[in-house]
Amino acid sequence: MTSIRLYSYFRSSSAWRVRMALHYKGIEHRIAPVHLLRDGGEQRRPEFSRTNPLGQVPVLEVESGGNVWRLTQSMAILEYLEELHPSRPLLPRELDARAHVRQLSELVNSGIQPLQNLKPNQVLRAQGVDPSPLVRQVIHDGLTAMETLARPSAGRFLVGDTPTFADLFLVPQLFAARRFAVDVTVFPLLCSVEQECEAMAEFLRARPEAQPDWEESAP
Amino acid sequence: MTSIRLYSYFRSSSAWRVRMALHYKGIEHRIAPVHLLRDGGEQRRPEFSRTNPLGQVPVLEVESGGNVWRLTQSMAILEYLEELHPSRPLLPRELDARAHVRQLSELVNSGIQPLQNLKPNQVLRAQGVDPSPLVRQVIHDGLTAMETLARPSAGRFLVGDTPTFADLFLVPQLFAARRFAVDVTVFPLLCSVEQECEAMAEFLRARPEAQPDWEESAP
Repeated sequence: MTSIRLYSYFRSSSAWRVRMALHYKGIEHRIAPVHLLRDGGEQRRPEFSRTNPLGQVPVLEVESGGNVWRLTQSMAILEYLEELHPSRPLLPRELDARAHVRQLSELVNSGIQPLQNLKPNQVLRAQGVDPSPLVRQVIHDGLTAMETLARPSAGRFLVGDTPTFADLFLVPQLFAARRFAVDVTVFPLLCSVEQECEAMAEFLRARPEAQPDWEESAP
Repeated sequence: MTSIRLYSYFRSSSAWRVRMALHYKGIEHRIAPVHLLRDGGEQRRPEFSRTNPLGQVPVLEVESGGNVWRLTQSMAILEYLEELHPSRPLLPRELDARAHVRQLSELVNSGIQPLQNLKPNQVLRAQGVDPSPLVRQVIHDGLTAMETLARPSAGRFLVGDTPTFADLFLVPQLFAARRFAVDVTVFPLLCSVEQECEAMAEFLRARPEAQPDWEESAP
């Protein structure tokens, strides 16, 4: 008997990607909310640093036969879920297409999100620096590359007519882009794929406002 | 007949990872140097933006039967090379161990490197901000997590006694850490794995000073 728990924050884009995969694949799981802002951040508590020494969500906790095993980093978690539950695949079969999906995913995963992440922004603000110009530029440049590179491969989704990892990275990234006041209407392909995703019940269940820890007024 | 070309800059840590994989797997390839600093950066030239719209190295160019296909993002390239040339594997067979290797790799790929990358540092400097405190903190925190998470899995390398993706991320990251004056002697496991890697001829061929575009005095 295996049980899966996801340490998550409703608005974390990295946790959102994993929630999309869990719902899409129909993998039963529980959400363990970690509030990244309350009381200076619950992820900084000693008990959570045993769960993830880097103090970040998502963390996937797999309990099986009394053993508990934990995995951090959304990309690593997605690859793991794909290998564990290959039905309803989120990677194509062909080598070139798999590589292309991962390329699009990493444009967000390593290209954009680390710069818009909470921690570097908090460090810059503590130095008296407004991080917004840097974050907006990184988001704009990264989404521009994504729109360009996805054009030849896109169908209803970024790569063909079924969802892939790349779409799981896109949806939370567009949400974050709007929070940082980046104009996303200049990316028609990305917005049209987002609409396709928003039409799917599985993906709607992964959205921030569908989470047990959702707050309308969180800063 | 397939030929492989890697767009690379001798000191780019992301290109270095891919060079390590190519040499370890014995994959024949040519290096196409792209100087990231000369004349404002060769990666900003229009002809290179056709190669990679984000203007970054590495780019893997695969020519086969007159078709040219390009792939960006080091993690996507590594996964592709692993699927294309599964001999001399850089991922273990077991699901949990594969996930752990990817988790360690992403600690660097999305956790550290994007913050020490050329572009955000240039943007911050243009704002009159010294990016060094942020970069040093991100490197220190990321390597601390890597040292902690790798302890239960390490043998001669970060995961067991043969190299994996994780080691390809570690070696260039330690090199970059020293450039940013981060004290890496507090990470004994990471330093001992680095020494194991430096003892391997395949990995030495991937180092900056072994590259055709190496410059001793590059800023």
